[in-house]
Amino acid sequence: MTPEAAMRAAIAEAERVKGSTYPNPPVGAVILNANGDIVGAGGTQPVGGAHAEVMALRQAGAAARGGTAVVTLEPCNHHGRTPPCVEALLAAGVSRVVFAVSDPNQEAAGGAAALAEAGVEVLGGVLAGDVESGSLREWLHKQRTGRPHVTWKFAGSIDGRSAAADGSSQWITGPVARADVHRRRAASDAIVVGTGTVFADDPRLTARTPEGELAEHQPLRVVVGMREISQDANVLNEDSRTMLIRTHDPHEVIRALTDRTDVFIEGGAALASAFLRAGLVDRILAYVAPILLGGPNSVVDDVGVASITRASKWRYDVIEHVEPDLLLSLVPDQAEQA
Amino acid sequence: MTPEAAMRAAIAEAERVKGSTYPNPPVGAVILNANGDIVGAGGTQPVGGAHAEVMALRQAGAAARGGTAVVTLEPCNHHGRTPPCVEALLAAGVSRVVFAVSDPNQEAAGGAAALAEAGVEVLGGVLAGDVESGSLREWLHKQRTGRPHVTWKFAGSIDGRSAAADGSSQWITGPVARADVHRRRAASDAIVVGTGTVFADDPRLTARTPEGELAEHQPLRVVVGMREISQDANVLNEDSRTMLIRTHDPHEVIRALTDRTDVFIEGGAALASAFLRAGLVDRILAYVAPILLGGPNSVVDDVGVASITRASKWRYDVIEHVEPDLLLSLVPDQAEQA
Repeated sequence: MTPEAAMRAAIAEAERVKGSTYPNPPVGAVILNANGDIVGAGGTQPVGGAHAEVMALRQAGAAARGGTAVVTLEPCNHHGRTPPCVEALLAAGVSRVVFAVSDPNQEAAGGAAALAEAGVEVLGGVLAGDVESGSLREWLHKQRTGRPHVTWKFAGSIDGRSAAADGSSQWITGPVARADVHRRRAASDAIVVGTGTVFADDPRLTARTPEGELAEHQPLRVVVGMREISQDANVLNEDSRTMLIRTHDPHEVIRALTDRTDVFIEGGAALASAFLRAGLVDRILAYVAPILLGGPNSVVDDVGVASITRASKWRYDVIEHVEPDLLLSLVPDQAEQA
Repeated sequence: MTPEAAMRAAIAEAERVKGSTYPNPPVGAVILNANGDIVGAGGTQPVGGAHAEVMALRQAGAAARGGTAVVTLEPCNHHGRTPPCVEALLAAGVSRVVFAVSDPNQEAAGGAAALAEAGVEVLGGVLAGDVESGSLREWLHKQRTGRPHVTWKFAGSIDGRSAAADGSSQWITGPVARADVHRRRAASDAIVVGTGTVFADDPRLTARTPEGELAEHQPLRVVVGMREISQDANVLNEDSRTMLIRTHDPHEVIRALTDRTDVFIEGGAALASAFLRAGLVDRILAYVAPILLGGPNSVVDDVGVASITRASKWRYDVIEHVEPDLLLSLVPDQAEQA
């Protein structure tokens, strides 16, 4: 098995635990035996539990000796709530460690150097781009900026409307897109809406399975705005916790969520536009239905763009057909940021 | 060479002549010799000139004997401005004819039967779907409905705006998308705009090469509306012909263009919305730039949809990355039409 193929398996493990590892990064690992076969796999456990490497090593047992550990993040070298992974890897007798992304966290870094010093062959940077833009994107953003990563998610028509002229919007997108939203909610830390959305749609804002049951992990629900919402609002039910933030300032919202990593803004137009004007959106997830609606209900209102030369510039990152809809993922245009 | 591979080569010939064959269909043909190698290829010539089969046979010469003719449309069997293609194929001594789409035109049909009767092996329906939704889409629509095929083309932001708040729109999309528009203009019969667009943008509405030169084939330019446009408007320059239609009724516009096959509606919002409300759009070509604009300038206004259940329903046909933009082609949802 090539290091890249093994890394893809490790990435799959990381995706599986995404959303449940807070405040730790969602990392995946696989162990190859001396013949190059996968003999162990695992992902980061909820806080206080084992890291990915340890989970994979446990599964591999003695078969790890002389083998290779493949991890999406450089193994940690510090005593936090758990002993360093470097120690566990050395104890298991692996002769080679492959990782994707170097640990940007000063405190935990140095794992690669410590392993090399102990005589382990170390290969870093394998599929680093995939991991940086994928499973570790939000966590790396948080390490770099100190802010949570903010995804603005919307469902709209090809003419950029979020509802028909009479305000009706259920359902713009199909069941596949809606299931995808719930899957991503379950992997996030918080979902933010404005009081307007609570008044208009009375959403539960929970992550549900295709069968309609509550997903195991529920993100924090956040309602932003000055208006008092009803005690009977679905967003206040017992399915998850809810935070009410009495402000119109997106910066205040981000400050209140500063210990979170992966935050979703789910509308409406006023809230999304405020975040966009403040430059506080790090990714756009647009579920675009193959329909036209026309009328006054746009997905955004004023995003602070006066003239075409001042347009808010993005880059298509992933384009996915979620039949019959289209999912467009956009990230800030780097030429623009430079 | 498989019949499918040969048909793809014939389709490429058809694409090459699209826009120059009016009122004849843009057909492509290749001739395979007895060994299955391509020995001739061609497309329909401008009116009065040779059909695709004849062009390909001329190139093949004696090598056609015992070979296969592969054509995107069933060979014609009637004396129009030129002798029937069936006669030419029999005279050349081909032993097999492969075609994609049966001729829906009563007068010209019967080619397959006549060939079979003369002892030629005939295989129809090869890549029929590709040809029906591709090179012959507009012509088949015209045969079926008696109306020209109408494509609404627009360039917009991901939030469905065609211009920034101050009205500036040059350029929403990048050079690749703009070149694609010009290529498609050159392959169309007519481009329709409203007087509003002439006043706002003073477009030339010509098809130009990436070097800025006029393309060989120029579509008819059509300006719709009640307002008088200036004699100095670019749309009235000598680069092509221009038709002025004094109406606000899309049905009247279509009646005036009834002898055309492939008509493009290029905006703005009022004109596009009127065609959409009238149910007169057969395809949407959306060039979607990875930008946000916000503000009042939407790609459409009122498309006649009051409630979400009455949304105008389409289906993604082709999704193409025209860096850095996205080209979405949509056709009416058949479940909707049924």
